[in-house]
Amino acid sequence: MAASTRADLTRFLNPRSIAIVGASNDPVRIGGQTIKLLTTFGFKGNVYPVNPKYDTIAGLKCYPDVASVPQPCDVVLVALAGAQVPAVIEQCGKAGIPFAIVLSAGFGEVEDGKSLQAQLKAAIKSSGMRMVGPNCLGVANLSTGFRAGFGGTLQVPTLKSGPVAMITQSGGFGFGVVSSACYYGIGFNYLVSTGNEDDLSMLDWVEHVLEQPEVEIVTVFMEGTTEGRRLIKIGERALELGKPILIWKVGNTSAGRQAVTSHTARLTAGPELFKTVFRHGGFVEVRDIDDLVDVCKAFLGRKLPAGNRVGVITMSGGAGVLLADRCVEAGLSLPKLTDDTRNQLRAVMVPYASPDNPVDATASGYNDNFTAYRKAISIVLSDPNIDAAIARSTRGKGAMPWAEALIEALRGVEKPFLINWGTAPDDNADVLAYLEANGVPCIMAPGRTTHAMAMLHEFAQKHRAWQQRKARTTARIVAKQALDLPAGDGALGEHRSKSLLRTYGIAAVEERLLTPEAIERLTQAPLPFPLAVKIESADIPHKTEAGVVRLNIASLDALKQAAHEILASAKKYKGDARIDGILVQQMASGVEVIVGAINDPYFGPVVTFGLGGIFTELLKDVTHRFAPFDVETAKEMILEIKAAPLLTGYRGKPACDVNALAETLSRVSLFIADHADRVAELDVNPLFVRPAGQGVVAADALLILKP
Amino acid sequence: MAASTRADLTRFLNPRSIAIVGASNDPVRIGGQTIKLLTTFGFKGNVYPVNPKYDTIAGLKCYPDVASVPQPCDVVLVALAGAQVPAVIEQCGKAGIPFAIVLSAGFGEVEDGKSLQAQLKAAIKSSGMRMVGPNCLGVANLSTGFRAGFGGTLQVPTLKSGPVAMITQSGGFGFGVVSSACYYGIGFNYLVSTGNEDDLSMLDWVEHVLEQPEVEIVTVFMEGTTEGRRLIKIGERALELGKPILIWKVGNTSAGRQAVTSHTARLTAGPELFKTVFRHGGFVEVRDIDDLVDVCKAFLGRKLPAGNRVGVITMSGGAGVLLADRCVEAGLSLPKLTDDTRNQLRAVMVPYASPDNPVDATASGYNDNFTAYRKAISIVLSDPNIDAAIARSTRGKGAMPWAEALIEALRGVEKPFLINWGTAPDDNADVLAYLEANGVPCIMAPGRTTHAMAMLHEFAQKHRAWQQRKARTTARIVAKQALDLPAGDGALGEHRSKSLLRTYGIAAVEERLLTPEAIERLTQAPLPFPLAVKIESADIPHKTEAGVVRLNIASLDALKQAAHEILASAKKYKGDARIDGILVQQMASGVEVIVGAINDPYFGPVVTFGLGGIFTELLKDVTHRFAPFDVETAKEMILEIKAAPLLTGYRGKPACDVNALAETLSRVSLFIADHADRVAELDVNPLFVRPAGQGVVAADALLILKP
Repeated sequence: MAASTRADLTRFLNPRSIAIVGASNDPVRIGGQTIKLLTTFGFKGNVYPVNPKYDTIAGLKCYPDVASVPQPCDVVLVALAGAQVPAVIEQCGKAGIPFAIVLSAGFGEVEDGKSLQAQLKAAIKSSGMRMVGPNCLGVANLSTGFRAGFGGTLQVPTLKSGPVAMITQSGGFGFGVVSSACYYGIGFNYLVSTGNEDDLSMLDWVEHVLEQPEVEIVTVFMEGTTEGRRLIKIGERALELGKPILIWKVGNTSAGRQAVTSHTARLTAGPELFKTVFRHGGFVEVRDIDDLVDVCKAFLGRKLPAGNRVGVITMSGGAGVLLADRCVEAGLSLPKLTDDTRNQLRAVMVPYASPDNPVDATASGYNDNFTAYRKAISIVLSDPNIDAAIARSTRGKGAMPWAEALIEALRGVEKPFLINWGTAPDDNADVLAYLEANGVPCIMAPGRTTHAMAMLHEFAQKHRAWQQRKARTTARIVAKQALDLPAGDGALGEHRSKSLLRTYGIAAVEERLLTPEAIERLTQAPLPFPLAVKIESADIPHKTEAGVVRLNIASLDALKQAAHEILASAKKYKGDARIDGILVQQMASGVEVIVGAINDPYFGPVVTFGLGGIFTELLKDVTHRFAPFDVETAKEMILEIKAAPLLTGYRGKPACDVNALAETLSRVSLFIADHADRVAELDVNPLFVRPAGQGVVAADALLILKP
Repeated sequence: MAASTRADLTRFLNPRSIAIVGASNDPVRIGGQTIKLLTTFGFKGNVYPVNPKYDTIAGLKCYPDVASVPQPCDVVLVALAGAQVPAVIEQCGKAGIPFAIVLSAGFGEVEDGKSLQAQLKAAIKSSGMRMVGPNCLGVANLSTGFRAGFGGTLQVPTLKSGPVAMITQSGGFGFGVVSSACYYGIGFNYLVSTGNEDDLSMLDWVEHVLEQPEVEIVTVFMEGTTEGRRLIKIGERALELGKPILIWKVGNTSAGRQAVTSHTARLTAGPELFKTVFRHGGFVEVRDIDDLVDVCKAFLGRKLPAGNRVGVITMSGGAGVLLADRCVEAGLSLPKLTDDTRNQLRAVMVPYASPDNPVDATASGYNDNFTAYRKAISIVLSDPNIDAAIARSTRGKGAMPWAEALIEALRGVEKPFLINWGTAPDDNADVLAYLEANGVPCIMAPGRTTHAMAMLHEFAQKHRAWQQRKARTTARIVAKQALDLPAGDGALGEHRSKSLLRTYGIAAVEERLLTPEAIERLTQAPLPFPLAVKIESADIPHKTEAGVVRLNIASLDALKQAAHEILASAKKYKGDARIDGILVQQMASGVEVIVGAINDPYFGPVVTFGLGGIFTELLKDVTHRFAPFDVETAKEMILEIKAAPLLTGYRGKPACDVNALAETLSRVSLFIADHADRVAELDVNPLFVRPAGQGVVAADALLILKP
């Protein structure tokens, strides 16, 4: 798959010259389209058609083969039938061309193309070339007129140049998004259709463009990746750079996932892991075209809010209430303005205007050329309680003077400011263009405006969280411990699982593993009543289902009786199960939570946390983090589930020991990360969280090894 | 407020002539704007300026007063300072003008306008006129060029005529929405800015336009209404007519709500009740401009799906997966196509196309002028497993022939079909216009397309549910019972509350109300152990909080001890509380639910249902229905909470007695509806739901009366 070190693709996107193998005189054929695209949009590099059948194509000298193409030639575009491609790649390698765009189809994407795919991969490997494709729509750099590919979008003359890159796994769809986004005012530089990714993967491209200073926003249309761990790293790098990756991910099935045993593994489906990556890295998830456009516009205002406190200023009460509602729904807040601000507002607005947030300057703005309205915006933006502001557009003759005075007044203001354009985009279109050219994004609908602001806030917040994580020098809560793990794969018994977890300081209930005979001989209880009695068997990971658990045993007779019964149940459930003994343990109590971890084949170790029982299974109130992580991060996890108040104190009930729970989560994350080579899955379920200061205790645990 | 019988406003919206009081020669003044608007856009009726200062205005004969205006005059538009309005209204009444549009401000919306408001209301009442406003932007009928009002939107020359009506409580915002929606292709007939609603209310207008055959869709921008019960009726009427009301509601605070005591009342906030009305009536909630545009477009396709099964056809795998994802998220399903359909698809498509839903006809469509793609759409639409279809647009030279052949092929197809326009709206704009003119809505983004389809399905489903409710002839589960209710308001004790509920067949635990002395004298338990012991006092509605409950009492001594303790607690909690005795009751078990009801001042009686404890309080997993309702409706309620599997059987646990629970919900709804004049709130909390066949039993209940 992809190289683990970052590929330098600068020349690929900014070539001095490009050879087109399969170039054609027929503009309908792909080989003809490519010539037309590279000669129409101002590309300044050399274009070398390669086709033994012609002397010239479209007035360009045509070469019989790649070997005869003048050097340096940075990129070759291959528009031949698939079967011819591997040989051409080999020739290009010999000719010293470093990069290839293979448009041809008929490889891994079709039933009978696997062997051709293998040949192509071998050719790439032996040639030392880097390739995008095959089966892709090509690569473009709209800022230089370099359009190397085919299809409808690249032929659109009005594609707009700008600081946004698009990397798409679906060429047709992703390029279509680009053409729409350009129509709505977003400008792009690099467009890459990644095709089958038989060499360069989507993430190679994302990694490259993310580092380019001329790229301010990376947009990605993604169907999937197996490089989960690398995706996490890219998300961290995006935060480090303060540059957002707008990600539009489709496909909610998790291909290739191995069969799973634990409860946790069932809760950790592929889409959940992608969501977890996106939620904590420098990604902004987008879900539709407008969404992508709006979020791009908002980021292109080039200001991030210091917090979630938004001031709303309108000339219509209805619009103000609407924007306020939608801000709050989107996780933003509308704080009270300071008395000073309110006094200043009163001084400039008409008497019946409202100086409270959302500020209603009233339609009287139409009588004063929006002067009071414009001043109100500046006053609100200077309020120390406000991190960002949203206002509605004006209309009519006074709109342009208002916009000009506003831009003047906004100089030096470091808080993000978005305008919700209140009418059709063609109403005072010149004002709209003027505002956007001067760094004030105008967004077409109120809910879209508040959403875009929320995305700015979310990214800014993640950026701050990342800086805090970076600044923390928390030592590991427990050093790496050697584990005495048996050879082979599969589940371990409960007693054994808990012993191993104890090595990392994960507390479990007091228990004794006894033989059936030892239980028969007991003359007093091995631990204080009430007790739980269970079968210890690696072959019966789901004990309740098998009927091999008895709880609340209150007497020695009952204990012996219970041991008899569960032995019989175990035999009935699975005749050949190896029985390692009878587990006698103390009953525990507290709030029941589940802590689990899996080692995902693509994303690596990940820890899952939620409340017990139906909260996780039915209400899906769980959260995930990639391991390892520290206690602070664990606390964030605890607080982000919906049922968190049950742990932090709810309706007068005492708070639980959240600190001990957070420590346990961090310990579990270290356990799985340290032993990712052997531990496939683990469940601590239930873990009882006791009142504050009294710790946590695991009542059951299950560890599953891989070979 | 509004009249309870429907006002006939036909002449208001289609006047033969209109008088303008306060007409002006100055086009900047409101009185001048109105003249310009009524003479510019083709209005065929007579326009009579009224102003004693002029002989003519804009070439029209000007009248000195309304009395001298020629008859018949159907509407008067008043553009005077507020203080002059009441007198003018009286004159108009005398002149026999039936309808008034009052643009003037300075009434109830300003601090010192209350007395003027009262004068205006009195003038309206004595004149017999019906009025829109004051403080509104006016009324328009875009199909006749009747634009009676002022402001930016009414001056837009490109407002589009069509079958959609807009009733807005915020003139500036709602009219702005209209101008945007026109830009995006939606056509309107009636526009009404309702202003202060001192006579005609928003609902008067909605009720009127809903009945007009030329109105196919009613859109409403709503800030609030006190006419909750009427809103419910309008929603039912919309279902009866099969005509959607697109409602955009802002304002999430519930003004004017009285102080509440019960748990249920806290769960029944104003926004929840509006949501309940919208969810079950002929409403479609819209939340943004695009949303309104898309849903209008989808309904203007004039076909409703028979179910939620959608076929998706694209020429790009990525787009297909995306549309499929979003369909499923929106509550639609992508069923398997029949073998017959798949065979037909295979016969027309290229070999590497996918005949499975989502169908990927592949980009090969660009080689056959989309012939196979067009056929694939028809084949999928004729699949009996499919209720509706979504396809992506095509582009380039072949797009128009494709569209023409498609429209031909769609003749007679009764299933809704939406196109997701895959590129910018100006790309093949003629094809887009052609498709829409021929009944195929083209929606601009994939998520917006699936959302619009989901709204079609939701409305169709509500329409079917309404027909089913209509067709059911279920008798009441219990006849109206007389209740022996004490005079005065406030809470009743638990025992008394339960006795009253028993009258309606609502089962409660066995219990005895005893005096403290009688308890002292007990020589054996009045009911089998274990027992609960509580204080019976109307003055202590929240018993747990007051410490006057003891559970799981297992002996006579413990019972006496408990009685002592809770008497002491009661005294400590509220020294002057009237103690009606000690309640001794059997312990109950089962799944804990809460059933409650309140009598909302605006919406009337409403029943709330949810699971006990944190499910309702923390997770807000509750549902509401307006009372009364039958057992079938109660079953729908039970199934629509997220935690429903806990009642219907979950992870091998037996199902609860859902039938008995549904009956109880219906009984509670009849109880509160029958006695809405006296019952303010009631809680049955907890109600224990036992395993199937074993019924339900209330362990506690609280009834709160109004005077």
